[in-house]
Amino acid sequence: MAASVLIVGGTHGNECNGPWLVQHWGHEPSQLQRRGLSVRTAIGNPEALQANRRYIDNDLNRSFIPELLDDPSTPCLEGQRAQHLLASHGPEGITPATVLIDLHSTTSAMGSCLVLYDRRPAALALAAGCQERLGLPIYLHESDRAQTGFMAQAWPCGLALEVGPVPQGVLSPRICRQSELGLAALLDVLEQAAAGRLMLRRALKIHRHLGSLDFPRHSDGEPSACLHPQRLLGDWKLLAAGEPLFLQPDGTAIPFAGDPSGPVHTVFSHEAAYQEKGIATSLTRQEHWPIDPSWVAALQALLQA
Amino acid sequence: MAASVLIVGGTHGNECNGPWLVQHWGHEPSQLQRRGLSVRTAIGNPEALQANRRYIDNDLNRSFIPELLDDPSTPCLEGQRAQHLLASHGPEGITPATVLIDLHSTTSAMGSCLVLYDRRPAALALAAGCQERLGLPIYLHESDRAQTGFMAQAWPCGLALEVGPVPQGVLSPRICRQSELGLAALLDVLEQAAAGRLMLRRALKIHRHLGSLDFPRHSDGEPSACLHPQRLLGDWKLLAAGEPLFLQPDGTAIPFAGDPSGPVHTVFSHEAAYQEKGIATSLTRQEHWPIDPSWVAALQALLQA
Repeated sequence: MAASVLIVGGTHGNECNGPWLVQHWGHEPSQLQRRGLSVRTAIGNPEALQANRRYIDNDLNRSFIPELLDDPSTPCLEGQRAQHLLASHGPEGITPATVLIDLHSTTSAMGSCLVLYDRRPAALALAAGCQERLGLPIYLHESDRAQTGFMAQAWPCGLALEVGPVPQGVLSPRICRQSELGLAALLDVLEQAAAGRLMLRRALKIHRHLGSLDFPRHSDGEPSACLHPQRLLGDWKLLAAGEPLFLQPDGTAIPFAGDPSGPVHTVFSHEAAYQEKGIATSLTRQEHWPIDPSWVAALQALLQA
Repeated sequence: MAASVLIVGGTHGNECNGPWLVQHWGHEPSQLQRRGLSVRTAIGNPEALQANRRYIDNDLNRSFIPELLDDPSTPCLEGQRAQHLLASHGPEGITPATVLIDLHSTTSAMGSCLVLYDRRPAALALAAGCQERLGLPIYLHESDRAQTGFMAQAWPCGLALEVGPVPQGVLSPRICRQSELGLAALLDVLEQAAAGRLMLRRALKIHRHLGSLDFPRHSDGEPSACLHPQRLLGDWKLLAAGEPLFLQPDGTAIPFAGDPSGPVHTVFSHEAAYQEKGIATSLTRQEHWPIDPSWVAALQALLQA
């Protein structure tokens, strides 16, 4: 039996390029066909998409938590939606999927990247294979106590494909094209793994999450500075001590104090949706991890089960 | 008595750069001081700003219509807000303002521009004076049956200052700076007019609204194409017959059919908030209007009343 892959667009209802692609693939399903794989699609949060809002009651991509998943009478729309997605497509669902690819866009100048939420070997193999093909960066968003319950963690193998910059609610051919290229590479890797032929040759370059920085704030809680324009030119860059971090309304910069643990690179600078989370930018450590043979073995075992 | 000017930020709750400036001016009011003017500020839609949404029940900048303004028991939050703003700052309000400047941002690559909603002479004088100083384009958004009830129309003299591109919900130093420069020029013009010394020398260049184009749609109402990348490089440009207008998911372009009435320039291409209004882009005709002495006379009479 072919291994099943679920592609989700519209997990956030104001990120409209993923749903646009899902709709297009409904007309042109051949783009998703790969030997040994059964690929299907879903809209993550149809109600939020209709409303052009990130979510209605709770961020769906933070809703895969026991409090919401285990409560059959939760009034939270996204809790209900998370339950429904798992009941339909989850590992114990009606038509179970083994791999979950979650399509996102960001207002940050991050280009195309992959987001992993833990170090499970199968997703590391998938991400490494995609990085070998496209060279894109990988954000390991782990150990963040303020943010849990990501959709991709609820499937045996899962990750997010994140593309930016694009405003919320804007359909962009460039963002769609980048998403298609990233997804095609992911499916190619899965096809090779399903055939037992995936080879990884290069060390995995990871940007490991260290923490997030909030805006400086007045005593009333309102931000007293915004990100400095130099921080908005692009993420994945080294942020050295003394470099401008925030800009105050009077034109003076607040420099970065530095991180005693070593060099840091920024991600998700300028992400509109993170203002409500008190995140101006997130800091990562760039690391090179040697390929572990167990990664490919884990992915191939999942797909050939 | 000094003529009163009201500056509104946050008429749309997900356009956060105007409210950011309003907050800053609260700490540094000297930036707004001009001889002969009493300048104050307001947040247009505090509830929507708090929710980081364009609006709660109805677009506030389409809510200055008799159905909402004349109904003391309207359940519409923005109808109530429009009534409140007029009761406080309207021409017959508690502390009446003569001039209304409404700060907006857009996801479209429009740079800084002014938006007028009719041809009342005082606002034409204000816009012309600002254009002489900064050279910015002016969009005359008149005669649009699908869109009425703009805030600026409810004051004796009013216009919007629109700056982009910036995603919704993103604080951008560049957008704030451009807004400050535009506002400073507007206040300088008003200061001259209040002193009876405003001189206009150059013809007014106007982009007059002709109509809007919706996306091509499938029979189920979903868009079947998005704007072509060439349309996203910047607005105010000539769109000639045969130039690519939309891009279909299969990569083929749909060309612009042309406009029999003459050359057209686009505005508000790619504005995220207009997808719900069925607007992919709007078409304008560029015109040069000789300065009419009645414009300055009208503005000076208002400010010196």
